[in-house]
Order: sequence, then C-alpha cells, then structure tokens
Amino acid sequence: MSYQAPIKDMLFVLNELANLEQVSRLPGCEDATGDTVEAVLEENAKFCGEVVAPLNHPSDKEPSFWHDGQVTTSAGFKVAFQAFGESGWQGIGHPTEFGGQGLPKLVGTPCTEMLNAASISFALVALLTDGAIEALLTAGSDEQKAIYLEPLITGKWTGTMNLTEPQAGSDLAAVRTRAVPQGDGSYKIFGTKIYITYGEHDMAENIIHLVLARTPDAPPGVKGISLFIVPKFLVNADGTPGARNDAHCVSIEHKLGIKASPTAVLQFGDNGGAIGTLVGEENRGLEYMFIMMNAARFGVGMQGIGLAERAYQQAVAFAKDRVQSRDLAGSAGPVAIIHHPDVRRMLMSMRSQTEAARALAYVGAGISDVAHHHADEATRKANLAVYEYLVPIIKGWSTEMSENVARDGVQVHGGMGFIEETGAAQHYRDAKILTIYEGTTAIQANDLVGRKTVRDGGAVARSVIAQVRATESALAAAQGGAHAADLAAIRKQLALGSAALEEVVDFVVANVKSDIKGVFAGSVLYLKLAGIVLGGWQMARAALVAQRKLDAGEGDAAFLRAKIGTARFFADHILSGAGGLRSAIVEGSAGVLALDVEQF
Amino acid sequence: MSYQAPIKDMLFVLNELANLEQVSRLPGCEDATGDTVEAVLEENAKFCGEVVAPLNHPSDKEPSFWHDGQVTTSAGFKVAFQAFGESGWQGIGHPTEFGGQGLPKLVGTPCTEMLNAASISFALVALLTDGAIEALLTAGSDEQKAIYLEPLITGKWTGTMNLTEPQAGSDLAAVRTRAVPQGDGSYKIFGTKIYITYGEHDMAENIIHLVLARTPDAPPGVKGISLFIVPKFLVNADGTPGARNDAHCVSIEHKLGIKASPTAVLQFGDNGGAIGTLVGEENRGLEYMFIMMNAARFGVGMQGIGLAERAYQQAVAFAKDRVQSRDLAGSAGPVAIIHHPDVRRMLMSMRSQTEAARALAYVGAGISDVAHHHADEATRKANLAVYEYLVPIIKGWSTEMSENVARDGVQVHGGMGFIEETGAAQHYRDAKILTIYEGTTAIQANDLVGRKTVRDGGAVARSVIAQVRATESALAAAQGGAHAADLAAIRKQLALGSAALEEVVDFVVANVKSDIKGVFAGSVLYLKLAGIVLGGWQMARAALVAQRKLDAGEGDAAFLRAKIGTARFFADHILSGAGGLRSAIVEGSAGVLALDVEQF
Repeated sequence: MSYQAPIKDMLFVLNELANLEQVSRLPGCEDATGDTVEAVLEENAKFCGEVVAPLNHPSDKEPSFWHDGQVTTSAGFKVAFQAFGESGWQGIGHPTEFGGQGLPKLVGTPCTEMLNAASISFALVALLTDGAIEALLTAGSDEQKAIYLEPLITGKWTGTMNLTEPQAGSDLAAVRTRAVPQGDGSYKIFGTKIYITYGEHDMAENIIHLVLARTPDAPPGVKGISLFIVPKFLVNADGTPGARNDAHCVSIEHKLGIKASPTAVLQFGDNGGAIGTLVGEENRGLEYMFIMMNAARFGVGMQGIGLAERAYQQAVAFAKDRVQSRDLAGSAGPVAIIHHPDVRRMLMSMRSQTEAARALAYVGAGISDVAHHHADEATRKANLAVYEYLVPIIKGWSTEMSENVARDGVQVHGGMGFIEETGAAQHYRDAKILTIYEGTTAIQANDLVGRKTVRDGGAVARSVIAQVRATESALAAAQGGAHAADLAAIRKQLALGSAALEEVVDFVVANVKSDIKGVFAGSVLYLKLAGIVLGGWQMARAALVAQRKLDAGEGDAAFLRAKIGTARFFADHILSGAGGLRSAIVEGSAGVLALDVEQF
Repeated sequence: MSYQAPIKDMLFVLNELANLEQVSRLPGCEDATGDTVEAVLEENAKFCGEVVAPLNHPSDKEPSFWHDGQVTTSAGFKVAFQAFGESGWQGIGHPTEFGGQGLPKLVGTPCTEMLNAASISFALVALLTDGAIEALLTAGSDEQKAIYLEPLITGKWTGTMNLTEPQAGSDLAAVRTRAVPQGDGSYKIFGTKIYITYGEHDMAENIIHLVLARTPDAPPGVKGISLFIVPKFLVNADGTPGARNDAHCVSIEHKLGIKASPTAVLQFGDNGGAIGTLVGEENRGLEYMFIMMNAARFGVGMQGIGLAERAYQQAVAFAKDRVQSRDLAGSAGPVAIIHHPDVRRMLMSMRSQTEAARALAYVGAGISDVAHHHADEATRKANLAVYEYLVPIIKGWSTEMSENVARDGVQVHGGMGFIEETGAAQHYRDAKILTIYEGTTAIQANDLVGRKTVRDGGAVARSVIAQVRATESALAAAQGGAHAADLAAIRKQLALGSAALEEVVDFVVANVKSDIKGVFAGSVLYLKLAGIVLGGWQMARAALVAQRKLDAGEGDAAFLRAKIGTARFFADHILSGAGGLRSAIVEGSAGVLALDVEQF
C-alpha cells in the first residue's frame, strides 16, 4: 500500500500537454523553469510518499476522535502537518510577500495530486486552508491580510469554510446564522454550522473559521449573506493566539470514509457570542465564498485524481503479485492475475481514466495561470472563460471517475478487496464523498449548464470543441507507423465524441428556455460527456506527441508506446460511451420526468 | 429506513411477464395458484418487513463478533431465524417429504428478494443453507438425506460451502485440504478454509459444512476434488447433535460490508481430524459444488435486486421529505428535492434498473421451473439451456447494477448519505461483495462466454435474441395511443440493443479460437450488454402489457402509466449504452492488451 508519485507521467503532461514552458514565460511565473519544477515535484513526491502516505491506512483504522469539545487527530497527523508547513508546501502557490513560494497553479497542481494520493483525509486540512487564503487575498482588508495570511500560508494556522447548516445543505439561501454588529467594527456570531471539515483539531495553534452569516437588516436569500472571520483563538496585538473565542465543536460525524478528517458540528455564540470581523463588504459573502469554492472545487477534482492513482497503484501491485488460475492462452500452472484479460481491462480502465483526468486538470491549471498572469487583458479574459468552463468538469468528472476507479480497485482484489485490512476498500469508501462535497455533481452540472454554457450561448463550449477538432485533424494527418490503427481508432471515437458534445451544447442552448427541466434532466450526463470527450482529447494529444517522439527516436520507447496504448483503450472503452450519453440527454428527458411524485 | 415489499410490482411480473399461470399447470406445481401465491407473498412481506428489516441497520452498527472460537451474532438474529424456520420460509422451495413447502422457484424467488431487501446479512444464512440442501438432494445418499435434510429444511440446522483456501481464491484447482479415509466409510479432514459465510454462529443447533477436499490418490487439479459433509456436531443415531467435531472457527473477517454476516476462517483437523462423510462419488466434488453454486449464483443475483429495491425505497423517502432549493420551473420557496431533475433522474435510474433486473430474474425462475417440471423432455432440455444462459447474466448484471443503485442512493442523500447514521452508506458497502462472491463478475462472464455461448456456437443466445425481436415486432404493431412516442423510443433502443448483442455473439463465436484473449477481454462487457438488452426486453414487454390494459380500461391506470414511463427511461438511459459496449467489445481488445506487464 505504498505510493510512488508518477513523476514521469506528471512531467509528460506538464511539458507536452499543459505548456509548462509557456507558463514559465508569464510575468511572475519565471521561477517555474523545467529544472526547478522537476526538483519541486521530486521533493514533494518524497515528502508525500515517505511522510504522509504511510499514515493513510492506519488513520482510517484509528480515526480522529472527539472528547469534551476537543478533537484528537489520528496518530502522526500533527507531526506530519508541522513538517508540511515548515517545508513550505502549504505556501507553494501563495504570494512570497506572505511567506509563500509563489509558484504557478500548474506547479502546485501535481503537488496537490500527490498529497491527496498520499492521504485524502490529511490533504483536506491543506485544501481548506488554501481556500481561506484565497478568500482573504481577494477580499480581506490589509489589516486582515497582515494578521492572518502569514500563519496560514506557513501552516502554523489552518482555515475552514462554514457554509452548511442543519436545514440548509446545498441551498445557501436558507442560511440562518446571525451576525450582530457591536459598534466597534466587530460582530457577534450566533448559529450552528455542520459538516465543517477540520472544524476542530489539534494540528495547529489556531483555526480561522470563515463563516457565512446574516446581518440584522440583510435582505433574504443569497443576497443577504456576509462573510466573517471567526478565529478559534482571538489574535493578540503581537499576532499570537489569545483568548478562546465562543466557537465550539459539539460533535464530529461518524462517516463512511475520510475518517481521519474530523467533520465538525460547530456552535457559534452559545456563551455570549463568537467575535468575528467582516470580510469585504456586507451582503457580498456568497461572492467571496465562491472564490474559496472555485479553488476548492478544482482541488476536490485533484482529490479524485490522487485517489484514483493510489487505487490504481495498489491494484497493479496486487495483480502482479497474486497468482491464480492458468493463462487463457495456455500456461502449465497458475499465473499472476495481471495476465487475465478482465483484470487487464480493469487496470487499463483505471489507468486510462486517471491519466485522462490528470491531463485535463493540469491543462486547466495552465490555462488558469495564463488567465491570471498574462500581460494581455483579452488573453487573460479568454483563458479565464475557458478555465471556468472546465472547473465543474474537472471537479465533477474526476470525482465520478474516481468512484469507478476505486470500485474496480476493490474488484481486482476479489474477496481480499472486501476485507478492510487490504486497504482497497478504504479508497472505495473515501471516494464517495468527493462527488458530494464542495457541490455535488448535480450542482457542478447546474453550473456547467447555467453559468458556463447558456449564459454565453455556448460560445466558450464551442471554442473548446473547435480545439478538439484541430486534434482530430492532426490525427488524420499523422502517419502513425506501427500505431496507425491505434491513431485511427482514437480519431474515430474522438470525432464521434466531439460531434455528440456539440449536438448536446446546441440542444442545451436551444431548449433551456422552453424546457428548462428537460435540459437539466440531462445536466449531469452533459458533464460526464464533456469529461470523456475532453479527457479523450488530452489522451489523443498525448498519443500524437508519443508518436512524434517515437518517429524521431526520442525518449523512452516503452513509456511512449504505453501512452498510445492507454489512449487507444480510453477511446474504445470510455469515449465510446459518448453516443449513449448523447441520446440520453437529447431524447431522454421524457423518461426522467415521466412519473408524478405520487407514482414513486 | 423501513421496507415495504413491492408486492404489486412483483405480482405484475409474476402474472404478466413470467407466466405464473403456465408454471402452476406444471406437474408438481399445482399449488402455485394465483391466490395462493399472492397470500404467500403477503405473508412473507409481513415477516421480512416487520421481523427482519428492522434488524438491518442496527446489526451493521453492532456486527456479529468472535470470542474464543464462538461467534455471537447481532442482536435479534437468533430469534428471527428461529421464526424464519418455524414459519416454513427456509423450506419454501424444497420437497414436502423433507418438511418443505414444495413451491416452484418462481414463487420462492420473490421471497428471496424480500428477505434480502430486509437484510442481506441475515438472508445469507438461508442462502447458504439452500445450497447445502440442493447438493444433498442431488448427490447425497438416502442415509445422508434422512439425517440432514429435514433439520436443514426446517431451519433447525444451517449449511455452509467450503471452497476457498488462503492460496486458492477463485481457482479451485489449487485446493489442498486433505481427506483421509478411515476404513469405516468415514474420512478425516485436514485443512484451512477461508471466507466461509456463517461458518460459525449461534443461530442454530448444528452447522453442516460441505467441504471440498482431496483424497490421498486423487488426480491433481479440479478433477481430484471430492465433496464431504463435515457437521459441527456429529449426529447421534436419533438425529440429535452429538460430540463436537474437529472443525473450529479461528477468526472472522473485518469487512467493508455485510458485517452482521460472520465470515469465518475454519480450521479442520487440528486436533486429530474432523470427521466427514463423502457426498456422492470421489473426485466428483466440483460437479456437486456447482449444483450449490448455480443455485447460490441465482440467489446472489436476487440479493442485488433486493438491495437495490431497499436503497431505492430509502432514496425516494428521503427525496420526498428533504426540502431544499427552489423548483427550476420557479417556485416561491424551496421544494422537496424529488422535484429537482437530477434527483429525479437518479431515482428513475435506480427504479428502472431494479425493475428490469427483477423481471429478468423472475422470468428466469419461471424458465427454471419449466426446465425441471415439464412433462416433455425436449421442452425441459430447451428451457434448461435458456435458464443456464441466463444465470450468469442474472448474477453478474443484477449485482453490478446494485452497486450503481446503491451509489446513487447515497448521492440522492447528499452529505447526509455519507454519514453512517443515515443508513444509505450501508447499502453502498454491502453491495460491494455481491459482484465478488459466488464467482466474481469476470467468472460469471467467463461462464457466459465459454460454457453458455461458445459451446453451442451461440445457438441459445440467438434463440433468446429471436424472442427479443418478436417483442420489437409487437412494439411496431402496437398503436400506443397517448404513449405512442414512448413505445417508439423503446422499440428504437431495443432494436439497437438486440443488433449489438447479436453482433457480439457472432464476434465471440467467430473469434474465440483465433483470439481467445481478445474475446475474453470483452467478456464482462458482453455480460453487461446482455443484461441491459434482456432487461430492456422485459421492460418493453411490461410496457406492452401496460398499454394493452390501458387501452382496455383494465387495472390501475397510474400504476400502468408508470410502467411505460419507467420502461421509456430504461430505454433512453440504460439500453442506450449498448452501442458503446458493442464497440468496446468488438474493437476494444487492442487497448485492453496493449501494454506488457512491465509497462504497468
């Protein structure tokens, strides 16, 4: 159950698909040279593989626990998080002026993947802290930045996001937590928040809760929500943690997975009021929270990819080791099960989906860097639109994919997979949260349909499809040599997929007004279709690069041939589902909506 | 988390799709009249819903546990099993001469579904006992039948299947357990068996282990395996349990799911040898074990269907109760989430797949009854061949389906689904064993390809496809009235599906010799394709019946319209995947087999 970061694959994606070189020429990204990035990845891989990964299974067996308002985290977490902060990993993508390393998102992204492959439960504290940092960087006052950013970025303190309340899951309009101004610029906060990841723990000196609440005269609904900083310990003038604030953890949840990550119920203000300060302006809380959420959504997508990679590695190791039954082609004795075709099929499915999602996410990260750092405003804006189109797909598809991969990981193990000791089952349990938190797949899909497709009449979606078509043309032009049949098969499925996606975009744009429920009945399917087509596009690009290098006699031939073979698998087994999704979306809403509520 | 057996749906399938009336005219099946069957189902529903279903979630939280060789089962299990046996439910399908009720499989099958919907963990003891009864009925001596059958059939004793050993999971050729003849007709058994469901427990007076072992001069491989009865307590001349046999439970497993079902490691012969008696002839053990396995495989398929129904009911109840966010079509306030299109889509997916798998399984059970009871030998033989074709599909597809349904059940619950208290997560965990035990999906698929398709050149498969085509013709001939568009959509997808299935059968038969690995690379996909096409066929038949009754003004119109709507959903959302599976099977083996082992 060890974890070896797939550095070679990661570098291939960074260099060949995600334009690291171009990113490193952006203003402020000059440190991200090829050599530096490789060194950073290797160092991070060492930390994640040696320090964090060994904690994953033991921390599932002995989860974090609550006693009398305190949460004791799983053995090893506190020490590992201290090392994480001190080594600068929390700050990898954050500004150097507050103690960060200031590296582009494209470099931070593989590090996020590695940390999550090592332990989703552990990585969550860093993910939430990143979100708090982003919100403060964007909307915090200079004073708030001066107080909070450095300790968060260096891992001395951690952050949380407090959205959900017992009566309001995904529906933030229903938030009831109250914020009462005290006349001195501070507020007293009263209310209950649930599902607060790392809402209480023993791994840092202080916890900075970012809390959605309503001021007394706020308008109803989402337009009356403000964002507050509510630290666990109030901060002294010298920046050290001071008096205990009135924000207390009353329990943590007993969960299906990510058991080492404490999920807290937080009670604010039961003893007179929790002291908080407003972030930005009143009633703009949702907007600021979306800053955290968008960063977190991309991060959760990376969780799916990291988990999938870990589950894949474990399944491969088992399949090479486990000897069982003769080879179909006729061996004398039993062989390692990796020789059995259906085991091979499952491993290829795990591998190809993980690689495709990784490539799409890294490409997205590179686009985000261009969107944030390019000198030209029009270029920034165009890239931001593409990045924002991709975020719900990266979050939604990568996590849905990770459920399937974790499931196949158990299946490869057979009966042993069902025994908790083996560890494969943990991935299956852990994966199930990823399609739920930071917005369920349906909420990602609503975002994809509403804000990302309908709002611009499908313009960005079509611009992305045009890029897919360019890759299809490149496949047509490639000779292919020994791999001509593979490239032809990839091209065929990619063309079918992009045509399906374009038809669906047209359908969504054309029908959303006249038949809103009929369009949203297919929203998740549209997200999945976009995932496999854009993932398949990246796999096709990888195959083209590999073919070019093989033709030129460059690089590691076995590695490059595997890229082509994996892309071929993805095309025939995953991308081939595009037609079915297309008809379910375009023709399938009648079935979705056929029954009255009383008929269920 | 209650469970209400879907009696109305079950009776619809029995009467309209699975030919209960025809079965009730078979010799020996005369008791299975419509009225009797309805009464049996209602009584069973009451027992399962009131006695067993309430145990399911508590028994997951407080599983069976091992101490000093003894297993204490979860609270309530012992009393419930006593009531189960005394009420005659263990004996429902077994011969009256040994205390059974002698009802056909078609009547026992809904009862199996209900018991599993109530609690998979509880139902397992009955499932394994059924298997032991089947083996003894087929291969046991008159003396063995006289000793063991009545106590097993009346639920006083229970049975186990002992196949797996630490070095031999699915590969029975590797069995090492030894059986040494004692000269008095008995044998001493020595060895270790793992994964023995209910291998030790406190719910019955005695446990009858059926054990695969090798006699001293047995040939190697599967042809040298014999089957032995090894009771936990040796049986006195008067039929009462006597001296403790040398078969001991040394531990039970800590599992992902079905936690209340003890999974034992059994040690035979550590104190001188466990006394056993041979079942049937030496070296024919595998053949007898397959009798148990085939019954058990069908039973595990029913477990998937029962679990899916339970997960569906729980998700519907939650979706009707949980109020969250406004209606897309524009409500003033928040609505129950069942009004949100993607929740509706998931519920329809759960519902339609459960209904399709149920219909296919019940139809299979009816065919099995004809195969065993019909007066005409040729009719028996033809039906047996169809039944045997269906068994791996019913086992494999229903259980794979149940994983997806249980997954969607968690997803409908959102964050609450991830909290164990809610109970949705239990189904997700429990479902994962169903695609593994009694032969993984890959093993079912190997059976489907090898024994069930290639051996007769695809003849039975094509005969089934011809029946699907007849339903397509009936759809073309139907007028459809208000549901004309639904019937047309169903017909379209069914025609695409049956064409895909036929092409795949042809591909399998044509290529298995020249490219055995390439064919088996798609074996699980062929199984899934067969599942959705044959499940879709049953849904289409249901829609035709519903349309006919609506036209005639018969029956419950809302119920019948829901049958058509559910069939429409299945066609557009599930059956529409047939084309993708077809290309993955026919074109996709290159990708499966593209990498060398060293490239993983």
